Amino acid sequence: MRDLKLFRRTNCFFSVVLFSAGALAAAPEQSPPAGVFSKRNPDHQQNIATEAAVRVLEDDPDFNAGKGSVFTSGGTNETDAAIMDGKTLAAGAVASLKHIKNPISLARLVMEKSGHVMMDSEGAEAFAKENGIELVNQKYFFTQKRWDALQKIKAAEKNRTSGAEKEFLITDQDRHGTVGAVALDQSGNLAAATSTGGTTNKRPGRVGDTPVIGAGTYANNATCAVSATGDGEYFIRATVGRDVSALIEYRGMSLKDAAQAALDKVAKLGGTGGLIAIDGQGNVTLPFNTAGMYRGYVDPNGKFVIEIYR
Amino acid sequence: MRDLKLFRRTNCFFSVVLFSAGALAAAPEQSPPAGVFSKRNPDHQQNIATEAAVRVLEDDPDFNAGKGSVFTSGGTNETDAAIMDGKTLAAGAVASLKHIKNPISLARLVMEKSGHVMMDSEGAEAFAKENGIELVNQKYFFTQKRWDALQKIKAAEKNRTSGAEKEFLITDQDRHGTVGAVALDQSGNLAAATSTGGTTNKRPGRVGDTPVIGAGTYANNATCAVSATGDGEYFIRATVGRDVSALIEYRGMSLKDAAQAALDKVAKLGGTGGLIAIDGQGNVTLPFNTAGMYRGYVDPNGKFVIEIYR
Repeated sequence: MRDLKLFRRTNCFFSVVLFSAGALAAAPEQSPPAGVFSKRNPDHQQNIATEAAVRVLEDDPDFNAGKGSVFTSGGTNETDAAIMDGKTLAAGAVASLKHIKNPISLARLVMEKSGHVMMDSEGAEAFAKENGIELVNQKYFFTQKRWDALQKIKAAEKNRTSGAEKEFLITDQDRHGTVGAVALDQSGNLAAATSTGGTTNKRPGRVGDTPVIGAGTYANNATCAVSATGDGEYFIRATVGRDVSALIEYRGMSLKDAAQAALDKVAKLGGTGGLIAIDGQGNVTLPFNTAGMYRGYVDPNGKFVIEIYR
Repeated sequence: MRDLKLFRRTNCFFSVVLFSAGALAAAPEQSPPAGVFSKRNPDHQQNIATEAAVRVLEDDPDFNAGKGSVFTSGGTNETDAAIMDGKTLAAGAVASLKHIKNPISLARLVMEKSGHVMMDSEGAEAFAKENGIELVNQKYFFTQKRWDALQKIKAAEKNRTSGAEKEFLITDQDRHGTVGAVALDQSGNLAAATSTGGTTNKRPGRVGDTPVIGAGTYANNATCAVSATGDGEYFIRATVGRDVSALIEYRGMSLKDAAQAALDKVAKLGGTGGLIAIDGQGNVTLPFNTAGMYRGYVDPNGKFVIEIYR
């Protein structure tokens, strides 16, 4: 990762923005944040924040989303993304995209212009094209690191089924690494955005928790905004995003306790991962049950914090 | 609809099975239920029940699922389905299928054999083929009634945008009509299954609430099983299935009150529809905010009840 220039301190009109990027290879340079929030659009600031943060991560080949997406078992790259507006509960989600450079921007377009919430595959890409989004070739998504991870996982699988004893070290970052952002703006509006290439060696057509509203992505001004990363199947089954929200709304739990409780249920089912969450008071929590989760936040004073391990 | 032979009284080992089929044209003949539950498989009885009930409805051209699916704006038929096992929280979901006769059976196969929870489009169909499921031609899904509904809705749209004054009567059944089933077996296990062609004139690639676990389909032995029908976009945004469950689990609400509260939130967002739900004690509720919802249930005594309007 070359730089992570997400936030301009001098023009920071978001109270708090959190972002995460699953498991990570490189430590980020904490360079002076650059202005991705150049337009002072008075509406939907929190959506702009999350989309912009996720776009930067999608364009970075070191993250498993957009450019750096992992490979399916069929050697293709297929991406999922979603965005949700906590003020209106409007949401946009896209799945199984093969030719979209910035899936998060298509998710936002689906939210704002399709009349639908979720679109997938060729239909979603046709909608993108209709709206002037350029389609890219599958070659755009090729990175040697992700290709090697696929070969390693396939070799480990073959090794396992043949009963051979060779050992393979498969790291979290070989397997997955969704990126996400949650934000609270100065008016108290929450938003969440998530984008991913899914899990290495997934079957073509597999959809993870990222575009499942209420699982990997959820925002509701009444409670919190959540973006999750990890073994998507478990996060869907545990409806993680909505569960964090429900525990706050119906049980009166704190954000931190609710997020931990929801993640504990994922672990109980057998899944690993983490999430980032923020509530309307600006409380943030970034729990994970893996070795590390690359995560960071910008607080109301512009303080920029980045962490990887515990 | 020619007959609705879902349940054999003499071999009824399910405590309660509910089913619904959105808005309906014809009243069902309450003929003696025939045996779709011929195999006494001791495991996953509740999943067999819901899958079997939904399969019958998918094969009936009068319902908007499988054979009778509505048309997209592109003149194609694209189906979604999901099944969830309340005991294990295992789930299977499929979206944007074009060549699968019984989407609910593919959803179950995804749950049991794919290692994933959700699969869509060509990838899902390739997985079906690998597992010996025969693909059908798009022509299989042609029904004159659904084609006419698409033409009527397109004409109404054109009329509206051109400012003409001609009036069109677009009924609920022209627009949608998902089918679903929820079941409780004698061991207290819950399951939910839902299948749909979506909404008439939807964009190709649009995915509704049906395959979104926690929205149109949800089951959890700790609380309830839910299957929803209606304006899918609103049901996703309101995370309806999980909300019913959360209101029971975290607020201690009754099934009936929780289902009504969740549906009220859909209405507040501007959506219409209904749901069927059952809890572990065998309580059932079938609220809807449309003119009617075709619905029925079989109680522990084999009593077979069918209703359409309020």
